Amino acid sequence: MPDRVGFQGDHGAYSEMAAKSALGQNIEPVPCHDFEDVFESVKTSQVELGIVPIENSLTGSIYANYDLLLQYHLHIVGETQLRVEHCLIANRGVTLADVTRVQSHPQALLQCARYLSKLEVQTKAAYDTAGSVRALRDAGSRDEAAIASRLAAETYEMSILQAGIEDNPHNYTRFLFLNRDPMLEPSGDTKTSIVFVLQNQPGALFRAMACFALRDIDLTKIESRPIHGSPWQYRFYLDFIGSQHDGPGERALSHLAELATDLRVLGTYLKGV
Amino acid sequence: MPDRVGFQGDHGAYSEMAAKSALGQNIEPVPCHDFEDVFESVKTSQVELGIVPIENSLTGSIYANYDLLLQYHLHIVGETQLRVEHCLIANRGVTLADVTRVQSHPQALLQCARYLSKLEVQTKAAYDTAGSVRALRDAGSRDEAAIASRLAAETYEMSILQAGIEDNPHNYTRFLFLNRDPMLEPSGDTKTSIVFVLQNQPGALFRAMACFALRDIDLTKIESRPIHGSPWQYRFYLDFIGSQHDGPGERALSHLAELATDLRVLGTYLKGV
Repeated sequence: MPDRVGFQGDHGAYSEMAAKSALGQNIEPVPCHDFEDVFESVKTSQVELGIVPIENSLTGSIYANYDLLLQYHLHIVGETQLRVEHCLIANRGVTLADVTRVQSHPQALLQCARYLSKLEVQTKAAYDTAGSVRALRDAGSRDEAAIASRLAAETYEMSILQAGIEDNPHNYTRFLFLNRDPMLEPSGDTKTSIVFVLQNQPGALFRAMACFALRDIDLTKIESRPIHGSPWQYRFYLDFIGSQHDGPGERALSHLAELATDLRVLGTYLKGV
Repeated sequence: MPDRVGFQGDHGAYSEMAAKSALGQNIEPVPCHDFEDVFESVKTSQVELGIVPIENSLTGSIYANYDLLLQYHLHIVGETQLRVEHCLIANRGVTLADVTRVQSHPQALLQCARYLSKLEVQTKAAYDTAGSVRALRDAGSRDEAAIASRLAAETYEMSILQAGIEDNPHNYTRFLFLNRDPMLEPSGDTKTSIVFVLQNQPGALFRAMACFALRDIDLTKIESRPIHGSPWQYRFYLDFIGSQHDGPGERALSHLAELATDLRVLGTYLKGV
């Protein structure tokens, strides 16, 4: 039986593409209405794994999923990165010259603004990328195109009029795989994601960093987020190379627990490529 | 003559609201098509000030504006914070019972998802919040509403059917004011924003933090961002309490310059409330 993998969006979404490119074509992707549905589906065992985006190179961290990671006690069991390559997609036989209107999620339209302004077409905001491809197919439109992933074109058997139309090619999204159970003794290069709260006193973050620096542990992410309603308190998101289960990683975490409040380990998993 | 202040969006945008609440009602807000237009308008002196969002409590840092801060050599001269209070807005005389469809930017629709699901209305994606209010006014629609700011309702002389409809009230956006010239000797509590690059060696960030911790300087933001195309290099965004011009802040910066590459000071300005 193939693994069922919950993802947010319609078939053809970038999340589904990331899941397939990391896990292979044999998985069974299960569309979920929103991010919370992905978490809920994993929690209730409707799917074996969930995949959610956690940060994008152009738009930053996706706090909604960090919040859900704290709310649901699931475990990160893997990560993968996908280059977001936007494609202009239309019904078969439609040519670029036929296109007078392009629809997609406003974020995707924005990321292709330069390309679209050369085309001199009208643009129309839609809920999501893959969904706008499906809408064009259902309507049989001959003068409209949509912006979405290559997978969306394949899923709905539509033509790609042009690929790689994003203005900035350095558009990457990092995704996390979620499971009800933690990954046991991953072998290979591991990475651990944690969340903790510090009182903002001068030097508080410095002392927290010392837990890792004194053990020569590499950090791959650090981010502070103000806690609204608690002035001068911050929540920190931190990823480090190493494991929560043994070695310097384990010791750094027990050292950090002396300084931080609400320390939560979100998971130890194999470092993605 | 009132100050001309460039902002992104249509009149009634949250950026315009933030500018007015920080600078008073006497400014002359100047709508700009996109963020880059705001920077360009400041650079070419078409406006005295620009205002751009830099981070939101639910969606994180707005990297597009950090990138423009590096590209344009403008200076941050102030900051302000606005609580994003979404309102359901319709033409005068339209009641909640008349509304069968609600349009707005997908982000705003998403942030009001719980409220909208109780209303049992259709939703429609639009380019921006204030623009969807203007569209309803222009169409004279009697069965549609839009989600936008209180200012958008006032600007287009429409009714607020309900205010504060966002699911999560902890929805704050921090905005920066930009000027061609740096702020000279601000008096009062100052804050400084910087960007720098570190090679990812174990302890590199720890040593960078030491520049501030050894001088008892408070940090109010730190964020790492991977530099794509340069594996293991990171760009850091950091805000600290103090000035680039004198005292411990100045000394910390000259210390940091020994460790970091591409250190850029984006501005010293009065700390917002």
